[in-house]
Amino acid sequence: MALLKKSNTDGQVHAIGQLQQHPGMASIGVATMGDIVESREWYLAAYATEGVPTSDHLKLRSVTISLSSDSIPNDHVALEILFISVDPYLRNKLTGTLDGLYIQQHHLNQVITAFAVGRVKKSKDSEYREGDIVVCPSAPVGEYCISPSRILRKIDASSGIPLPDYLSSLGVPGFAAWVGIVLLGDPKPGSNVFISAASGAVGMSAGQLAKIRGCRVIGSAGSDQKVKLIKEEFGYDDGFNYKKETDFDAALSKYFPDGIDVYLDNVGGKMLESVLNHVNKYARIPLCGMISEYNKVWTEREGVRNLLNMVGKEVRMEGFMLESYWHRFGDFAKDMEGYMKEGKVKSKNKINIGIETFLDSLSSLFSSSNIGKVVVQVNA
Amino acid sequence: MALLKKSNTDGQVHAIGQLQQHPGMASIGVATMGDIVESREWYLAAYATEGVPTSDHLKLRSVTISLSSDSIPNDHVALEILFISVDPYLRNKLTGTLDGLYIQQHHLNQVITAFAVGRVKKSKDSEYREGDIVVCPSAPVGEYCISPSRILRKIDASSGIPLPDYLSSLGVPGFAAWVGIVLLGDPKPGSNVFISAASGAVGMSAGQLAKIRGCRVIGSAGSDQKVKLIKEEFGYDDGFNYKKETDFDAALSKYFPDGIDVYLDNVGGKMLESVLNHVNKYARIPLCGMISEYNKVWTEREGVRNLLNMVGKEVRMEGFMLESYWHRFGDFAKDMEGYMKEGKVKSKNKINIGIETFLDSLSSLFSSSNIGKVVVQVNA
Repeated sequence: MALLKKSNTDGQVHAIGQLQQHPGMASIGVATMGDIVESREWYLAAYATEGVPTSDHLKLRSVTISLSSDSIPNDHVALEILFISVDPYLRNKLTGTLDGLYIQQHHLNQVITAFAVGRVKKSKDSEYREGDIVVCPSAPVGEYCISPSRILRKIDASSGIPLPDYLSSLGVPGFAAWVGIVLLGDPKPGSNVFISAASGAVGMSAGQLAKIRGCRVIGSAGSDQKVKLIKEEFGYDDGFNYKKETDFDAALSKYFPDGIDVYLDNVGGKMLESVLNHVNKYARIPLCGMISEYNKVWTEREGVRNLLNMVGKEVRMEGFMLESYWHRFGDFAKDMEGYMKEGKVKSKNKINIGIETFLDSLSSLFSSSNIGKVVVQVNA
Repeated sequence: MALLKKSNTDGQVHAIGQLQQHPGMASIGVATMGDIVESREWYLAAYATEGVPTSDHLKLRSVTISLSSDSIPNDHVALEILFISVDPYLRNKLTGTLDGLYIQQHHLNQVITAFAVGRVKKSKDSEYREGDIVVCPSAPVGEYCISPSRILRKIDASSGIPLPDYLSSLGVPGFAAWVGIVLLGDPKPGSNVFISAASGAVGMSAGQLAKIRGCRVIGSAGSDQKVKLIKEEFGYDDGFNYKKETDFDAALSKYFPDGIDVYLDNVGGKMLESVLNHVNKYARIPLCGMISEYNKVWTEREGVRNLLNMVGKEVRMEGFMLESYWHRFGDFAKDMEGYMKEGKVKSKNKINIGIETFLDSLSSLFSSSNIGKVVVQVNA
């Protein structure tokens, strides 16, 4: 069987030729034939311009990948994917337009990529050996891949930290929380910090980081159970269920009698507007993402009408993407690993089993049904 | 005649008792009776919550002020007001609420205050002598006042710079332009800079400061004549009449084929929203004020629907008030005086004669009828 390979812009090698379609694949699982493996992967079948992506947009297919040494370029490794990180930004790569996050879009028929934890199956880099556990920032959402080794980060499997945590508190959402709270929000002890989507992957770490800084931290979340969790597990001082609050302004008046100094915005829309009615002088609003807005075209999004308040209160609102902060990842990882070992930061992960659960895992991010970080467990 | 005096929070001494109402006052002018002067002044008769302020909200009255030495406290001077600065923020002090700019509000019956240039008539401070020309940041909008000397700044009348320029390029709007462009926008040579209300008091200085930095500068203004002016007088590379553009997005596509790096926002609303569709990575948006929004209650203001773009483009949007930057005023004044003497920054002022023109001068700011800085000439 001829196997075509092509490097995409990440330098990732994906099998793109002679795709094997296996209708009954889910029950077959991965077939290993010596150095040839069959890898199921999710690809973009149609752009998802509006709404939550469905099986019309993302489809599973099977490709064959050769793991034989002569198929692997130098300075590359073959990886068995163990865990895949499911993050809201993935949804923004499916629209075919550059609206919103301006992330590089997936092309039609292209495999979806994501952060993943993998195990080295074969190595053409002397720094890596079979069995090493690595984080890959741009792995195909599939079961196997050939990856350039320069983009990988090795994990010390003896640290006692569960592997999925390297995709949550120690991964993309934890790093986002650290950039938002520590670098941009920079709250002082006693500052009043508000975090939306507080029980989500970013929110859980963000709240704990703000508490470590000595702040008063309030979160909003989408159920009473989540509010209970952020208080009992993640150390939030208080929180409220935004679905029960008909009037965000009244809620914020109640929970922030002294106003808001830092708001880590994960949702955008009406909540952001209400926050701007409660900001203190020199408040900072790091914009981490706006999950309330991702499934709408921009002209249908909620307009924020009170930006004028930013003038009088001299508010700084700043969007950020992690790509601009990678040079600080080492500082983050050192801080965060320390906190986790000391028990100061806890992680909660929702683990869905099997590559076939990826689409439901992604759409679940928008249904407010999850607590903590959503991870798909593949081969582990 | 008993004369009651009271210091307000600025330490300004205003006559508040036994107000003399003179229906025919405008034709009488100022009556000087030895050390007693009659001073016409504008006061807040009713809160202006919505719309452009009218004679229902601001009224002229006459007060008597004693200029005799024993009426002036130590470290105070008696001033004859020469020019009064008419700025959009004054409108925000008339609502009786803290919405928007959160500026300290005028109380009912309180005299309106503003930046002014005055001449010392009598001094109880050895640093000041009769005839000195000063800038007073909180003078009553009237003809005379007693001011604490510590808040004054002396003007070198021999500099050759016309006195009204100390309220325009060298005053509040020039300083706002400097903070917005130099401190917060901080554009690099070749950066693409957009300035709304470009022919206004802030815009005229802002564009020239950006040109001095080697930027490509485009402005929007409310008439073809204004667009001509910003190009011919203020050195803008190009500009457009926003009233003729039915589609701001199309206009910005045309004038910014390479996107916008810095937007000094003076208007808010729809223009800000359109700019967010054209920002480059790491764009900066200093928010100087939002004149399109001042006459509306906030729930009726234009919502900005595409703040999500700030995330992907990592835009920093930052409101500012000059009160937080006074410690930099000396740096600004040194820069700006140098530029003005070298002819690198020009100022254009619309001078209305007579204290009675203040209300029309203020409301004219919202009718897009002015070019440059609006100043009321009082006694000069």
